[in-house]
Amino acid sequence: MIKAGVIGSTGYAGQQLVWFLNNHPDVKINFLSSHSYSGVSFSKIYGNYSKSIESICVDIKEAESKLSEIDILFIALPHGKSFNLVKKALNLGVKVIDLGADFRLKDPDIYKQWYALDHQAINLLPKSIYGLPELNRKIIKESNLIANPGCYPTASILALTPLLKSNIIDPFSIIIDAKSGVSGAGRSLNTSILYGECNESIKAYSVSSHRHTPEIEQVLSQINSENISLLFTPHLVPMNRGILTTCYGNLVKDISQEELYKIYSSFYKDESFVRVIEEIPETKWVKGSNFCDIAIRVDERTKKVIIVSAIDNLIKGAAGQAVQNMNIMFNLDENKGLDLLSMFP
Amino acid sequence: MIKAGVIGSTGYAGQQLVWFLNNHPDVKINFLSSHSYSGVSFSKIYGNYSKSIESICVDIKEAESKLSEIDILFIALPHGKSFNLVKKALNLGVKVIDLGADFRLKDPDIYKQWYALDHQAINLLPKSIYGLPELNRKIIKESNLIANPGCYPTASILALTPLLKSNIIDPFSIIIDAKSGVSGAGRSLNTSILYGECNESIKAYSVSSHRHTPEIEQVLSQINSENISLLFTPHLVPMNRGILTTCYGNLVKDISQEELYKIYSSFYKDESFVRVIEEIPETKWVKGSNFCDIAIRVDERTKKVIIVSAIDNLIKGAAGQAVQNMNIMFNLDENKGLDLLSMFP
Amino acid sequence: MIKAGVIGSTGYAGQQLVWFLNNHPDVKINFLSSHSYSGVSFSKIYGNYSKSIESICVDIKEAESKLSEIDILFIALPHGKSFNLVKKALNLGVKVIDLGADFRLKDPDIYKQWYALDHQAINLLPKSIYGLPELNRKIIKESNLIANPGCYPTASILALTPLLKSNIIDPFSIIIDAKSGVSGAGRSLNTSILYGECNESIKAYSVSSHRHTPEIEQVLSQINSENISLLFTPHLVPMNRGILTTCYGNLVKDISQEELYKIYSSFYKDESFVRVIEEIPETKWVKGSNFCDIAIRVDERTKKVIIVSAIDNLIKGAAGQAVQNMNIMFNLDENKGLDLLSMFP
Amino acid sequence: MIKAGVIGSTGYAGQQLVWFLNNHPDVKINFLSSHSYSGVSFSKIYGNYSKSIESICVDIKEAESKLSEIDILFIALPHGKSFNLVKKALNLGVKVIDLGADFRLKDPDIYKQWYALDHQAINLLPKSIYGLPELNRKIIKESNLIANPGCYPTASILALTPLLKSNIIDPFSIIIDAKSGVSGAGRSLNTSILYGECNESIKAYSVSSHRHTPEIEQVLSQINSENISLLFTPHLVPMNRGILTTCYGNLVKDISQEELYKIYSSFYKDESFVRVIEEIPETKWVKGSNFCDIAIRVDERTKKVIIVSAIDNLIKGAAGQAVQNMNIMFNLDENKGLDLLSMFP
Repeated sequence: MIKAGVIGSTGYAGQQLVWFLNNHPDVKINFLSSHSYSGVSFSKIYGNYSKSIESICVDIKEAESKLSEIDILFIALPHGKSFNLVKKALNLGVKVIDLGADFRLKDPDIYKQWYALDHQAINLLPKSIYGLPELNRKIIKESNLIANPGCYPTASILALTPLLKSNIIDPFSIIIDAKSGVSGAGRSLNTSILYGECNESIKAYSVSSHRHTPEIEQVLSQINSENISLLFTPHLVPMNRGILTTCYGNLVKDISQEELYKIYSSFYKDESFVRVIEEIPETKWVKGSNFCDIAIRVDERTKKVIIVSAIDNLIKGAAGQAVQNMNIMFNLDENKGLDLLSMFP
Repeated sequence: MIKAGVIGSTGYAGQQLVWFLNNHPDVKINFLSSHSYSGVSFSKIYGNYSKSIESICVDIKEAESKLSEIDILFIALPHGKSFNLVKKALNLGVKVIDLGADFRLKDPDIYKQWYALDHQAINLLPKSIYGLPELNRKIIKESNLIANPGCYPTASILALTPLLKSNIIDPFSIIIDAKSGVSGAGRSLNTSILYGECNESIKAYSVSSHRHTPEIEQVLSQINSENISLLFTPHLVPMNRGILTTCYGNLVKDISQEELYKIYSSFYKDESFVRVIEEIPETKWVKGSNFCDIAIRVDERTKKVIIVSAIDNLIKGAAGQAVQNMNIMFNLDENKGLDLLSMFP
Repeated sequence: MIKAGVIGSTGYAGQQLVWFLNNHPDVKINFLSSHSYSGVSFSKIYGNYSKSIESICVDIKEAESKLSEIDILFIALPHGKSFNLVKKALNLGVKVIDLGADFRLKDPDIYKQWYALDHQAINLLPKSIYGLPELNRKIIKESNLIANPGCYPTASILALTPLLKSNIIDPFSIIIDAKSGVSGAGRSLNTSILYGECNESIKAYSVSSHRHTPEIEQVLSQINSENISLLFTPHLVPMNRGILTTCYGNLVKDISQEELYKIYSSFYKDESFVRVIEEIPETKWVKGSNFCDIAIRVDERTKKVIIVSAIDNLIKGAAGQAVQNMNIMFNLDENKGLDLLSMFP
Repeated sequence: MIKAGVIGSTGYAGQQLVWFLNNHPDVKINFLSSHSYSGVSFSKIYGNYSKSIESICVDIKEAESKLSEIDILFIALPHGKSFNLVKKALNLGVKVIDLGADFRLKDPDIYKQWYALDHQAINLLPKSIYGLPELNRKIIKESNLIANPGCYPTASILALTPLLKSNIIDPFSIIIDAKSGVSGAGRSLNTSILYGECNESIKAYSVSSHRHTPEIEQVLSQINSENISLLFTPHLVPMNRGILTTCYGNLVKDISQEELYKIYSSFYKDESFVRVIEEIPETKWVKGSNFCDIAIRVDERTKKVIIVSAIDNLIKGAAGQAVQNMNIMFNLDENKGLDLLSMFP
């Protein structure tokens, strides 16, 4: 059994991770840590775990004292909070999967520019691996420190990678118009995520300034061999879960929709969790699952291509992908504990 | 492996059943039958099954020709449609679980009164077992024909049974005020379940005339040893899933809330799927699971007791309970394939 | 022009009141006061007022300094906060409509019992009028201090008054099962009203302990001539607005549904804002309007009557009723500025 | 008083129009016509009109017989259904506002190409005026036949017109990513707009093939003096009302966000219903009103401009704009009967 600890277990992403770890046949949860709810039973915070996970959340200090008892540490904290924890865990030989943003960007200057914070573990950056299995499976297996991708970047990168690998679009024409359910904003107290404020409305936010922009650019630039600048616009949609990205690019060669489908199907043919489908994705078909659905349309009138992808932001966009990475790191079947279809409606 | 056939697989309850059968380690689906979508791939109708259940839905005729190949037949049809199918299946030695209403009421006159239809398999009524495992586990095990309970009756009966067993309330004072998500109304084309008609509104419906009334009365009357008439009022709530019942009764003896909790906890102490909890239930904590959560409040000012119960109408209220019944009938662990917690949010 | 001031203008009820005052042909808003947003433009807080109400919210001190400039003061504060304000305003000859709870209960002991607070303006209680125009129109006209009814009490009392006036039900059998949209919980930061916590779920809350219980009892007891204890259970429904009450009572005489309809239609025949209708009410038909819709069902099997009523909790349940009271106090047409139908969907 | 008739009064747009006409001080509704509900009282179909609009819907034949009694005919029918009606009405000297698509596209070949239908009133096309008051106020005043704009085109054209007038963007770089509430899909029975199918999900649809594309292109091409091809992608969002468009274009000159704001503010300075605002628009601030909110962002990294606009699809995107056009045609104040702010939440 893999012994796991979870820091930040009572946020939405952390709690989703607990769900999957609890459901995983090869994992035993050692501790659940929470800043806001230390000393409280996990099932008092989230009633779905009633009679099932009655253990008491520990504070960060107690969590640190238990690091030597575990094999893997999951961290689901706001950015800037994981530096010391990661160092301590790695020093003790504990593998780390960080669901936060601190180890995703390779360049500490870009980190500082977008997160307004000095990076405090620069020497670890070369060792951290961007945990998108579809791109980095081999190096994830060898790594002790995984930077679990952001939700928007997961959906965006999976949508765009085959296009960029094939040099089919102008890399400077990329626009990603993304739409997310409200759980993506977390569970912190904030007027903007009150029921009455979100329900029955849609808005764009962080236009041209969202922190996932450099993360997407970094990964796509590696694929493209040239640095890419792109435009990323997130929107808030009145639903609990799900991200839909609608990605646009200018075609630089004549290519049919059918040919593009072949490229995508071939690129993802061995992937358990990417489904290249004919119908335009809807978030409802992936909600509650680790899948990423992708469809392709070519607009011959404007010589543009449209790629639409859908994920569950808390699963393939966070906790599910973290478990997928753990499975890889521990040589388990990659889809162990993750083989659930979306439950509809 | 248990070989299963599903009639009515493309309604919401049927589809939910397919989800659980597909997820069950001991079941192999032999055929999926659909009136509206015969000849269509299941995953074209419900995109969550993309790349997973690509089999083609058969029509009822083809389904009947395959009855001899299966061990169990699940029927999820509107009332009045299952009579012949049940006869044929039983004659071939196939066990039957009917998720519809045709075999729940023991008295064909009451059936006719509420469903405006002559019962067409009266001789089977004595053999059919009301498939609520918490009450009828032993006889379910011996039966070949299970009448799977209605969604409202499941939540209502589980809420009220310990009270009636203990002769604590006036059985003629019972009022059940129930609230259901929209999936309970099925997937048939009907203006009243269009998005714009349901969203942002709540209504009562079928006031004093809902067909689940006699079903609840029948089961509670058996417990009470005297025939009970009660008032049942369903409401439609703008959410996909979930039933909350708020049940009221007049206390006939002085009893504290604590004592009532002891009675309930004791009554359900060996049940996997009933959770007697302190907090008032919320449907979100059971959504996606087979649990029924129950809490108790005594109002000393009015000498009334309030029992609140919550289930997922498509799971404990339909497909999950059907699988639970199947597990019992086939001597499997009762919670096999059903041991999922609600995924939140 | 009536010069009006609003204290607590940036909560949901306060803001709804501003909407109606702004829309009223005979009212000029003198000041908007806010604890949380003093110094901020009203339209920065609520974007619907962009280019329309750009005035800056004042703090309570500035509001008090302007009392002498106004004809009427509306107060939309949490309970316990309005005592001094009301005294000051009345002393200056300013009429007051308090949308909060502080002047609704006539008995300061009951106030203390349910609100856990000593009443601090006991001498004003005899002068305050419960502002339900359908019952108290005449004395509202003469009053300077209106206790604007609670949302649940408005819907409940309008539903039950004709029954009690006619001595048709056992007054001790009354159960009110009420369902409210989330705006009823206000706009304060509270995890329980985050989008992810309310959406896709229904719950009961404050079972047998909600503070609107004694308010309903007080008014119905006056009608009944004997003190009534009743059971009131509120529920939280995933929608922005609307209250539906399902009220139950035991009939003490043989009476048909048709006769009851005659009693209700007659009782409310001169009312602009109460609609006695055949169809069971749905909150969507009153949302955005000052109407209360009421329907009646008799269940002959159990000798019970069910009254269903629907209001918009922020309008007939708060701001609309406040404006209706103002119209009465200032001898205006009672429906002035309130004659809007619900906009659907 | 203006005597008005409404054809197609029981669809969502038609019904919204009835709401505004009923609310308009200078309009008297002469007849309401409905294909699906002829012979039924309007308030039986839409309960918000209970006790208010009890008149019986007439069929098309009776409606035609009443054409001579009215001053203006509003038509809210699916495309292809209004040709004869328009001819008859115009021949009788009745002004016509067609909320459908039949008279929007000037080129019958383009109409045929996108609507798969031969245009059957080609001679009327030169006389029909595209009823976007902000662009065509003067010729609307002189016209007898108004083609009321589509919902998406209204939001898109208002967002993009000042940019194109100023030659600031590459007209061939335009991408419009639009999001609509479900009422935009109408009230016809269709599985895809059932509650369970729309709730808790977002999807793109009609990607690169939506019929509003040529309508937007036609109007923007007139502004641009060169024919524009653009990419338009609509999405379905789980909310009743509202359209948000996120419009992208490549800047062809160095220009700051501030300068763009000046251009927009100047362009719309005399408009009652267009609000150029600092904050990114949210549909909740315009829902229930005739406003179009617009904000501008410049992304200096990619040299792109993002314009976000929000409208209520049933009001500024349909019925409100129709009334605005009527006001212009009859020399009334343009905002008469339309001066309502959005009611929140």
